[in-house]
Amino acid sequence: MSAPAQLIPRSTAGVADRMALSAATATGVHIDTGEVPAWLARHRHGCGTQVRRIDFAELDHWSFAADSGNLHHSSGKFFTIEGLHVVRPEAQWQQPIIVQPEIGILGILAKEFDGVLHFLMQAKMEPGNPNLVQLSPTVQATRSNYTKAHGGAEVRYLEHFLDPDRERVLTDVLQSEHGAWFYQKRNRNMIVEVDGDVPLHDEFCWLTLGQIVRLLRLDNIVNMDARTVLASAPTAPAEPQALSSDADLLAWFTGERARQDVHIRRMPLREVAGWHSDERAISRDDGRFFKVVAVSVEGAGREVRGWTQPIIEPVEAGIVAFAYRLFDGVPHVLVHAMVEGGFLDTLELAPTVQCVPSNYAHLPAAQRPRYLDLMLGAPAERIRYSTVHSEEGGRFLNAESRYLIVETDEDTTPAKAPPGYQWVTPGQLSWLAGHSRYINVQARTLLAVLSTGAADLGRGTAGARRLP
Amino acid sequence: MSAPAQLIPRSTAGVADRMALSAATATGVHIDTGEVPAWLARHRHGCGTQVRRIDFAELDHWSFAADSGNLHHSSGKFFTIEGLHVVRPEAQWQQPIIVQPEIGILGILAKEFDGVLHFLMQAKMEPGNPNLVQLSPTVQATRSNYTKAHGGAEVRYLEHFLDPDRERVLTDVLQSEHGAWFYQKRNRNMIVEVDGDVPLHDEFCWLTLGQIVRLLRLDNIVNMDARTVLASAPTAPAEPQALSSDADLLAWFTGERARQDVHIRRMPLREVAGWHSDERAISRDDGRFFKVVAVSVEGAGREVRGWTQPIIEPVEAGIVAFAYRLFDGVPHVLVHAMVEGGFLDTLELAPTVQCVPSNYAHLPAAQRPRYLDLMLGAPAERIRYSTVHSEEGGRFLNAESRYLIVETDEDTTPAKAPPGYQWVTPGQLSWLAGHSRYINVQARTLLAVLSTGAADLGRGTAGARRLP
Repeated sequence: MSAPAQLIPRSTAGVADRMALSAATATGVHIDTGEVPAWLARHRHGCGTQVRRIDFAELDHWSFAADSGNLHHSSGKFFTIEGLHVVRPEAQWQQPIIVQPEIGILGILAKEFDGVLHFLMQAKMEPGNPNLVQLSPTVQATRSNYTKAHGGAEVRYLEHFLDPDRERVLTDVLQSEHGAWFYQKRNRNMIVEVDGDVPLHDEFCWLTLGQIVRLLRLDNIVNMDARTVLASAPTAPAEPQALSSDADLLAWFTGERARQDVHIRRMPLREVAGWHSDERAISRDDGRFFKVVAVSVEGAGREVRGWTQPIIEPVEAGIVAFAYRLFDGVPHVLVHAMVEGGFLDTLELAPTVQCVPSNYAHLPAAQRPRYLDLMLGAPAERIRYSTVHSEEGGRFLNAESRYLIVETDEDTTPAKAPPGYQWVTPGQLSWLAGHSRYINVQARTLLAVLSTGAADLGRGTAGARRLP
Repeated sequence: MSAPAQLIPRSTAGVADRMALSAATATGVHIDTGEVPAWLARHRHGCGTQVRRIDFAELDHWSFAADSGNLHHSSGKFFTIEGLHVVRPEAQWQQPIIVQPEIGILGILAKEFDGVLHFLMQAKMEPGNPNLVQLSPTVQATRSNYTKAHGGAEVRYLEHFLDPDRERVLTDVLQSEHGAWFYQKRNRNMIVEVDGDVPLHDEFCWLTLGQIVRLLRLDNIVNMDARTVLASAPTAPAEPQALSSDADLLAWFTGERARQDVHIRRMPLREVAGWHSDERAISRDDGRFFKVVAVSVEGAGREVRGWTQPIIEPVEAGIVAFAYRLFDGVPHVLVHAMVEGGFLDTLELAPTVQCVPSNYAHLPAAQRPRYLDLMLGAPAERIRYSTVHSEEGGRFLNAESRYLIVETDEDTTPAKAPPGYQWVTPGQLSWLAGHSRYINVQARTLLAVLSTGAADLGRGTAGARRLP
């Protein structure tokens, strides 16, 4: 009793080919790549937004709950800042953490112009961005946003993502965000293709992937949300060979996750040990890691006229780095199976190094994070990518990190990786980023760089800071 | 600076081919398939185990905590029975739930004899099995087991799974278990191949996949742990075409997971509303779903001499069924994106129907689970597979369900599936079962049946209850 039906190929290799064509197209139909930074700056000046640090007491509709001390909004929406207790065999700690259980949408609209995919990017202001306005996905909306919990305007283009025709969805996957700052946060990373005419609003522009690649080499231009969506797309070419088979890589990952003994408990912010608060900040007693502070956003002129909010501010700039090697000519990067307290499931694959170096400056070298000194001391001729990016400006204030790809060698990073580390190809990373909870958000930024060709791999010159 | 290295192919298609050869091999080197049920029965009689229902007060080392009322072991190990509060937009409920955060190992040892993979299966007694002894994986061990929290004997063959050579691992993936009864439980599903001699202990036998397939057609022979490990193996052939591409299937899954609004909270067992307890059981006031009871296991003679434990007992036998159709000659089954309160992440893909029918017998047809009546009323000539299997006998008492695969048609189950349902091929299910948290444990039993060829698909006769 076989029914006639329209079967289609399970594999959609065509999408990766079209992404590759777009990545190879350095000129778009809409705006010159070199003009994008100035276009963003115009929007920064145009919006006239000022971000000002304020006392917690000046927060509007935000307050510390009488019982738990948790910082929350009077509507019950947006997010809360609560406490987290993480217990591992070798250490235990308590910390504030952002709790925002709803799943947001990070969506990029795609459309062919002259046979080449272009992506609709937004000049979006976020208060935590060091330069306020960065290149963002078409849609970046929490559920509170699009159900209008803060009484804001419509989210433009949202309708394309709320109920899309599945066959036009190029990618759609739930991805984690920062496990050190967010409790089990995940967002939907989507790219949806459209055929018909789409109105072009003022703060938006169509760019090829090749244009975005060039912008990824500039400091603080492409925001985190755009980077993670690009990393989730099927862009990286699949190498047929690698140091490990895909099955061995999954087995290693399972073993790493299974061997961890991590106990996580949410707790009242009031009771978090080792932290203290004053009028303007909740800080660790030893001054390390991050602070919770409050800002006022004035004259924003986009969704609402202005607002106040708590925000997390790291104490110093971070470093996020992949060790990179060619084995038999095939690129590999060294991933680290890393536990973060806020992960829904224990650990994900992180870059070789991911930390704020100043947190460890007082420690002897042997107690600093593995490979940190190798990355900090990398000679210029080994640096294949070096660009400063900031994290989500809606929740993190000036959370800048230098993202590095450093070519290393057998002496410093042998082919047989130490426990907790593994050499993988960009194609393997991209394959895993097609599913949830394998690749953490910092590694996804570097994957976006690797899979689109934004790093100068194997050419011996740093790719950063060159204007396209 | 490319280093010479031993690259290997990323894809290991060879494993699937060797699994297929084993599935096609109906005769093994060790024991006739037809003798396995008697061999299991001999072990049942040999172990002399008696399982007796007891009062909670007769539990040894188990007690209800003074504050929470949670049922726990004095060692703090094994598991606890606590309360769970599940809130969804359309309903909210409270229930007891098993909390067992540690990750166990379900491992099958594989070895070639005469060029064909055989699998080392165990005749294992578990108190909740209706027939006590079933065919089980080589190793079935909680962390408490192998760290000897209950002072038991060594777990045989465990060393092959604790630190295996990755290249001999045929599959290794964390899989969820029953989300209605377990809080965020997952186990490691492993198949590890060995070359050298392996001592053969009395309660073990080597079987080809073809032999296990025939045993999967008999009631209560192959235990749940063996079924889920087999489902996680790369056995199903990958169809090149399907009703949906793999990318569309993932996009649909992401949309289903993202649209759910589920709030889960653990709570003290004492405070669970709608349930009551007496000396021998914790039951729902309306008698539906399941009970928590206690058993004494006497004369077990395996790891320890005897023990007592709490255990979950469903109120009636269940039904677990896939609607099955051929589209253009390609087999598809209808999966249901199903929320279960104990899932780590909201929902997983379940069979078309999965429930205990008596829980709904009092409701009008329109309020019973979708497709339940279709499955209960399926005419014999549409039934492609029908076998009774029981769930994990270490935690569930007499938890039997009839597992069905029923061929349906366009009238009852159209090619365009309703919201929350999707047609997928066995190859797509198998692909997803290679990762965590896509396919729930009941669907994995049916996947083991589908991917090994244990169902008589397209042949029009029921495959169940025929002795091989």
